[in-house]
Parts: sequence; structure tokens; C-alpha cells
Amino acid sequence: MIEWKNLDALAAYEKLSGMKDRVNLAQAMSGEGGTERVAKYSVPMAGGLTYNYAAKAVDDDVLAALRALAEEAQLAAKYEALYSGEVVNTGEKRRVLHQLTRGQLGAAVMADGVDKRAFYVAQQQKAADFARKVHSGEITNAAGEKFTTVVQIGIGGSDLGPRAMYLALEQWARQNSAFKLEARFISNVDPDDAAGVLKGIDVSRSLFVLVSKSGTTLETLTNESFVKDALKKAGLDASKHMVAVTSETSPLASSSDYLAAFFMDDYIGGRYSSTSCVGGVVLSLAFGPEVFERFLAGAHEADVLAKEADPMKNAAMLDALIGVYERNVQGWPATAVLPYSQALSRFPAHLQQLDMESNGKSVNRFGEPVRYLTGPVIFGEPGTNGQHSFYQLLHQGTDIVPLQFVGFRKNQAGMDVDIQGSTSQQKLCANVAAQIMAFACGKRDDNPNKNFEGGRPSSIIIGDRLTPEALGALLAHFENKVMFQGFCWNLNSFDQEGVQLGKVLAKRVLAHETDGALRAYSDLLDI
Amino acid sequence: MIEWKNLDALAAYEKLSGMKDRVNLAQAMSGEGGTERVAKYSVPMAGGLTYNYAAKAVDDDVLAALRALAEEAQLAAKYEALYSGEVVNTGEKRRVLHQLTRGQLGAAVMADGVDKRAFYVAQQQKAADFARKVHSGEITNAAGEKFTTVVQIGIGGSDLGPRAMYLALEQWARQNSAFKLEARFISNVDPDDAAGVLKGIDVSRSLFVLVSKSGTTLETLTNESFVKDALKKAGLDASKHMVAVTSETSPLASSSDYLAAFFMDDYIGGRYSSTSCVGGVVLSLAFGPEVFERFLAGAHEADVLAKEADPMKNAAMLDALIGVYERNVQGWPATAVLPYSQALSRFPAHLQQLDMESNGKSVNRFGEPVRYLTGPVIFGEPGTNGQHSFYQLLHQGTDIVPLQFVGFRKNQAGMDVDIQGSTSQQKLCANVAAQIMAFACGKRDDNPNKNFEGGRPSSIIIGDRLTPEALGALLAHFENKVMFQGFCWNLNSFDQEGVQLGKVLAKRVLAHETDGALRAYSDLLDI
Repeated sequence: MIEWKNLDALAAYEKLSGMKDRVNLAQAMSGEGGTERVAKYSVPMAGGLTYNYAAKAVDDDVLAALRALAEEAQLAAKYEALYSGEVVNTGEKRRVLHQLTRGQLGAAVMADGVDKRAFYVAQQQKAADFARKVHSGEITNAAGEKFTTVVQIGIGGSDLGPRAMYLALEQWARQNSAFKLEARFISNVDPDDAAGVLKGIDVSRSLFVLVSKSGTTLETLTNESFVKDALKKAGLDASKHMVAVTSETSPLASSSDYLAAFFMDDYIGGRYSSTSCVGGVVLSLAFGPEVFERFLAGAHEADVLAKEADPMKNAAMLDALIGVYERNVQGWPATAVLPYSQALSRFPAHLQQLDMESNGKSVNRFGEPVRYLTGPVIFGEPGTNGQHSFYQLLHQGTDIVPLQFVGFRKNQAGMDVDIQGSTSQQKLCANVAAQIMAFACGKRDDNPNKNFEGGRPSSIIIGDRLTPEALGALLAHFENKVMFQGFCWNLNSFDQEGVQLGKVLAKRVLAHETDGALRAYSDLLDI
Repeated sequence: MIEWKNLDALAAYEKLSGMKDRVNLAQAMSGEGGTERVAKYSVPMAGGLTYNYAAKAVDDDVLAALRALAEEAQLAAKYEALYSGEVVNTGEKRRVLHQLTRGQLGAAVMADGVDKRAFYVAQQQKAADFARKVHSGEITNAAGEKFTTVVQIGIGGSDLGPRAMYLALEQWARQNSAFKLEARFISNVDPDDAAGVLKGIDVSRSLFVLVSKSGTTLETLTNESFVKDALKKAGLDASKHMVAVTSETSPLASSSDYLAAFFMDDYIGGRYSSTSCVGGVVLSLAFGPEVFERFLAGAHEADVLAKEADPMKNAAMLDALIGVYERNVQGWPATAVLPYSQALSRFPAHLQQLDMESNGKSVNRFGEPVRYLTGPVIFGEPGTNGQHSFYQLLHQGTDIVPLQFVGFRKNQAGMDVDIQGSTSQQKLCANVAAQIMAFACGKRDDNPNKNFEGGRPSSIIIGDRLTPEALGALLAHFENKVMFQGFCWNLNSFDQEGVQLGKVLAKRVLAHETDGALRAYSDLLDI
């Protein structure tokens, strides 16, 4: 029997709360002890990845307390409830089924009179067929020329995840003869966004993917009009250049304005939709359906591993628990995501949405205010770039910021140069190893400017190469981590009521139904 | 006589500390009082911009305390010391002269036997002449073809600032017949970065700008080799495709490997170098020297305004002081930068470096540990994109995150569509106005999920259009803000010792001179 309890109602949390500043990380990571931690504090992940948490400020006692917390908070059972189709998105009274887009985790989930796994598979096959026809030249522009570019029009989860995934696999695909179409993305209602993208492409050979679950997203519909305008001015029939990704009940679903429509549903939140046809159409067009299927396989493998009840064997659950310890016991307000991979340049922006939109909340799943901190601020840039930027604060600032590194032994493009006895890839890897130790152990120096206290915790996810499987595993790892943290905090991680008020007020401004300061700001902005 | 005192040694700070949670922002911004605040709490900036702080949680008493703090901390006098050429970068024993790259603020500054303003002007003229010759076709590739692309190779301040500035003006330049060359940027030591850029350009018609002050930056030299390799493989003479931006004493300065060399010096930190030839060469090539001069003029105008001793007339100083109040009295750990302008998509990444690398420090300018918080975490993405992402946490999360909005009345590209009675630009502006009020005032709702507490402070910088002058003013505003905050916290904002330890350890890894956990991590990463 599942009980949804607040974090501070759990006995295990009370015990954990007594463990503040328990580990002297600089000491723990020094000498033989440090070597042992690197070997021991490691969990295999899906996609050939490994989660290594040796440089987190935990020890066996903290880990035992976290394991007790996982059990008392019923994390495994709550996950099972979720993938079995229970209505865990209680605010919106919805199931949460994004895991079904990449595999079957439990018994069949029936909803709206259909088997939802079969529904998602059918949509993905439809996207695959469409992509194959575009690649083969069966579907072309009016002049019979092949399409060369796909442009996704969407915002939030219809933009950040798919864009990050495209960039993550672009070089890999070029190197592995899987590169089919260039992808571009239009998201912002700022007309300079669409204008900039349109100036850089040949619209006559571009296919536009309009993504809006409701079919009513202001930014997306505005950008659709912007693009249709441009197509018309170029003498093109917009309906031959556009497909829709939407829900079956949306106004876009049956419109003759589109070459085809692919369906999602209310059980998949935007930020969890990269493995649905929100990501599937654009990524299948860009890299081929086979690559997208490999990506799904990696995500599914991660979902299966996340079923393990023992956090010492479940990287997503352990990552979540350590995060709760850092946030609620240590009181640290932010987390930096630092992939040592240029391909993951926009992955932190995706995680920023995933994490902050899911768990940036002050009331529990029953609407009662919580008396503890919830989701942290998430930010990050790829290494080594960040090293020459905000790492100064991470090393020597007055706040401690826990760090999530990601690193791969091999690069994607397969091009490299040997300089001063090492390749670029070796330099990249040497830097991430060095940073972990610099943060953990610091270094005493008589010059206080050059003194490093250390004690700044990090974990690293290590892989061989950023393949489609590894990317899928990475994506699902963080989705599952965020889900487990939401369970610990007793939040509904699957709604986003906090984004609504701004929309309502913006409509009021545009209708000129405002007064007071809102009127004054509108005047300043000439609206 | 300037006295460098810690923040907590100032009587004005003690008074300010008693003013925690003084203003009920939701109340203050409601009704007539809110309208009055919007009119009253506003300071003109350079470049036609305005700094409006009506939605900050301050009142006349807090502002009076901040004015007293500015006076006691001698902010104006310390700025004067800086632009007069005193050695305010005490750690590295250097002057701080980036303001001289855009104008003369006080008496001539002589250093290294020359007038530094004249030196920077000469370098900028050299860059302008070079750019004009490239544009006119006097300088071409070996086949006599004009260059079409400029690629900046640099990292940290040689990348983030110039890249953000290029993106900020790209659409404006296209619209205003000032677009000359496409620019691209290579920064990361990850070979996939350079590989990706090279695959997207015609190297035979590309000019590479190698930027490294010391001439020894690992990433930049590695990427130079990578590019030279590619040029060689394409049968091209690398020395006819490459220029250097470096210091006069660097190994790159007199090399015959470059078409030309442009000089900077030790008085300009990387993160303050966008207005030196670090930004000047690439931006003059991309948009023409006239555009770059307009950008410098905007920055200089901001520098002049920053001399004003009264913070109520000095937006950079006031912005800095309010930030100190938020950080040290309110205890808020992060600040979000939210430009409602797609052109400013990478401006937050630049500010992240500028702010976190300058003021993310735990010891004062004398090397003594400080007992108060210093620089916050800085992050952000353009609106309206962020609204569909991390704004959930900003509206309803358990931490309060102060917000810095930026908005313009007009777009850059001049293309727009009218939908449902309003243009995209109007929708963009309506959204930023709406967000300010939603954050400040919130909204009571019986459904606790839909309840907004409000009380979340923001300021907005408003301009007519993002022109070169406005961009220069915006850049310099934040440089000066960070400088004033560094003065308040009694930090040396101009060194970055925190980035050194990682470099040292990385070299040790590459030389295989490691043991313990560092050896273990290196093994995991196959180095």
C-alpha cells in the first residue's frame, strides 16, 4: 500500500538530518582511501554508462541512511504505480506514461480505450514511415526535389529536449553515415528568432514540424503563421511543407494544412516528450528511424534499471537521494551540470527545464505547503569552456555548488590532432579528471588567493562514446532521477501551474484590459 | 583618501542589515502605488536604455541606506582610481584599463612607456584597416576570392563575450546592410567542436582569428593545430588564412604564421575584453568597423554615466547596490538574467562568466577570508523560451531568485506578422510586462497548486531597439555593476586564481604523474 508522505514526516529523514557535514571530502578523497572510493562508489547505468559518486560528500553511513529513506519513501513502489498507469499526476488527474514511448515496463496500460504502448509504437512507426519516404524521395517538394532541412517549430519541451538531442547526435550521425537532413529550431515569439532561421535555409527544400500538444500554444501558432507567410512569399504551398505533432483532439489534428499529423497525448508532459513523436519526427527525419530506435532502446534500458529497489544498484535513485541530502541536509541551493562533450552543449538547458519545471514547487501533491526546500537551480555549460568562465565561483565562491560531470573516452567526429604528446580528446578527459580532484581536495597555498579549500562535491557519468543508446540512457537517467526526487519531496512533478499566471496576464495586456503598474509597464514597452 | 574596507566593517551596512524583508512587494506594486513606483523608480542609462527597478523589493528608506553605503564604500572614488590607472588588480599587481578601449574617462594613463588609450585606439584602427581590406577584396585567399567567413578561435573571454555580441547584432546588421562576413566560433578542446564548425564552412574562403593573450592557452593552441591541419589537407597555406590577437610579448606576436597580429595587454581581463581587439577584430570583420565604433560609443557613454556618485542617477551603481542588499541582507543565492530578445540568447552566458569569475571569491583584496556572501550564481535564457521551462521554479519554488529582465520595443529583423490582433513583437513585450507583475504580485487562488505568493523581485532594462550603441551600453552596464559590487565586497574582481589548480592537475594527468584517486579517474577515462 503506497503512502504519500512529506519528506519531513519520514523517520529516515530525521536520521539523515543529523548527518550534516559528516564527511570531510578532501580527506576522504586523498591517498589510498580516495583510490578505493573511486573503485567502490560506482553503479552501472544503461547504454554502457557508469555513475561514479566517489567525490560526493557521502560515506557508508550516509548511504545506509539514504537506502532507508528510499525504502520508507517507497520509491520503487511509487515508480511501479507510475509505469503501471496510476494517476500520479494528481493535480491534472492524469497518468504519466512517457516511459511507455520506449518500452513496456509492466502490464499493459489501457486508457482512452486503447493500449497506450501500442498507440505510441504506432505513432513512432508512422513517423518512421514518413521519414523513410522523405529520405527516399517519395515525398518531395512541389518541384520534385528532395527536402534537405527540417525545421521544428515548438517551445519549451517541444524545443529544448529535441534540440539538445539533435545537437548531441549531429556529429555522431555525420561520422556514421546516418546524417539525413539538417535540423533547425524556431521557438521564441520574438520574430527575430524565426527571421534568423529562415534567412539561413532554403525554404523551398525545408520541411516544417509544428509541435503543440494543445494546438493552441501562442508562440508556436505565431511562428507557424510567420513561416507560412514566408513560404507564400516564396511562391510555395505551405501545406506541402508542413507536418503537425499534436494530440488527436487538437484543432491541428485533422487540418488539411499539413502533409501529415503525428499524435501524442496528455499522459506525456512536454519536458518528458523527447522520446515521443515530439522528438521522434524531427530526429527520425534528421538521422533516420533506426538511430531514433537505438536512442529509445537506451532510454528503455535505463527505465528498466530504475525498477531496482536498492539504490546502490539504481543510479537514478541514488543520484536523486544524494541530491536530497545535498539540498535538504546540506542546504545547497544550486547544481551545475558540466558535460565534457561539445555535443551536449544544450543538454544543461534541457535539464534546467526538466528539473526546475518538475520540482520547483512549494506545495506537496495534496496542495499543502511543504516546510523544506525542493528543487534547486540547475545551470551549466560544456567543459572545458566553463573552466574559463564560472568555475572560479565553483572553486572559490562563498556558496558550495554540487557538480554533475559527464565524460566520454572517445569523441564523436573521429577527427583529432596530437599536440605536445596528447590528443585533444585526452586533454578533454584529463581536464575533467583534474577538476573532480581539484574540487574535492583543493590545495593549501600560503597565498590566500591561490588557496583552495576543496570539499566541493561532484559525481561523474562516464561513457565510452556518446552514441544514440548512451544518449537515450542519459536522458532517461535524469528523467528518473527527477521523478524519484519528486517522490522524496512528495511533489507532483508532472504539472506546471507556475507558468499559467504570466500567460493570463499577457493576454490581458494584449487586450488592453489592464491598469496600475501593469498598464504602466505596457506603456513603457509601447504595447 | 581611499580606504578598502570589508562590507561588514561599514556602518551603512549594519544599518542596511536591519532592513530584511522590509518591503511587501506584492502590496507595493498593487494599485496606484504600483503605477507611481514604475514612474519613479527609473534611471536613464546610456544607449537610450532605461533601468527600471520598480519591482525590486526596495523603498525610499532602503534606497537611502544604499546611498549611504555607496558613499561610505567610496564607490565613485574607487572607480576613479581604476580608470585613472591605479593598480586595483592587487593580486596580479596590474592596472585595470578595459574602459580605455572605448574612451578616455580621466587623465591620460601612461604604462609601459606609452599612452594606453592611444595604444588601444591604434590597435582598433589596425583592425579596422584590416577589415576594410578584407571587405574590399584587397586581402583575399590565394585564389583571389573574397573571404566569406570569419572563425574566432578562443576560449573564456575570447569566446563568450565576442560570440554573444556577434549573435546580438547579426540580425540587426543583415537588416541594416552592415552584414559583411558570417562568424563562427571554436572554443572547446573537445575535437568535436572544431570538427563541427569546419564541416559547416568553406575553409578556402574562411579567415581564422586566433585569440590568446598569453599565446599559451591549451585549448586555443590545440584548436589552432586542428584548423591548420584541416587547411593543409585542403591544400591551403594556413598563414594566409589566420590572424592573431595576442599580447606584444607573446610567442604569437611576431610569428610569420599569421597574416597580421593585433595586440591587447595585461590590463584587460578576458571577460572584460569584448571592446578590445579580442572583440574588435571579429566584429569589425563581421559587421564593419563603423558598427564596432558605434558599439564602443555606447559602452563609453555607459562608462561616463557610471562616474556619477549618486546611485539614484547611476544605474550600474544602483543595480550593484540592490544586488548586495538581495545577496547579503535577503540571503538570495542566485540571479536569473532574462532577455526578451532572441538576439541576446548567449548574453546570459557572457554575464555568467563576467559576474561569477569576477566576484565568486571568498577572500578580500588583501587575501583575508570574508565573513559574508559574495557573488551569486548567474544563469538565464531568453524569454519567452524560459517561460516554458524553468520559470515554474522562479514562480513557485522554495527559493526566491531575483530577476533581471531586458526588453526592447522593436525587433531587429523588421519582419513580423499580425495574428489575433497583435504582432509577435507586441506579444513578446506583453509577456515581459506580464511576468514582472506576476512575479511581484502573484495571485491568490483557492487551489493551492494555482496559488502564487508573489514577492519575487525583478528589474528591467528597456530600450527601443537592440542597436550597436544599446548593446555597448548594456555590456558596459554589467561590467560596471560587477565592478561596483566587487568594491562593496572588498574583492579583487580582476583576477581568477580559482581556475588555475585544475590546469595544473590536468597537466599532471597528461604527463602521467598522478597517483591515488586522480590516477583512478584517469584510468576510468582511458588517459
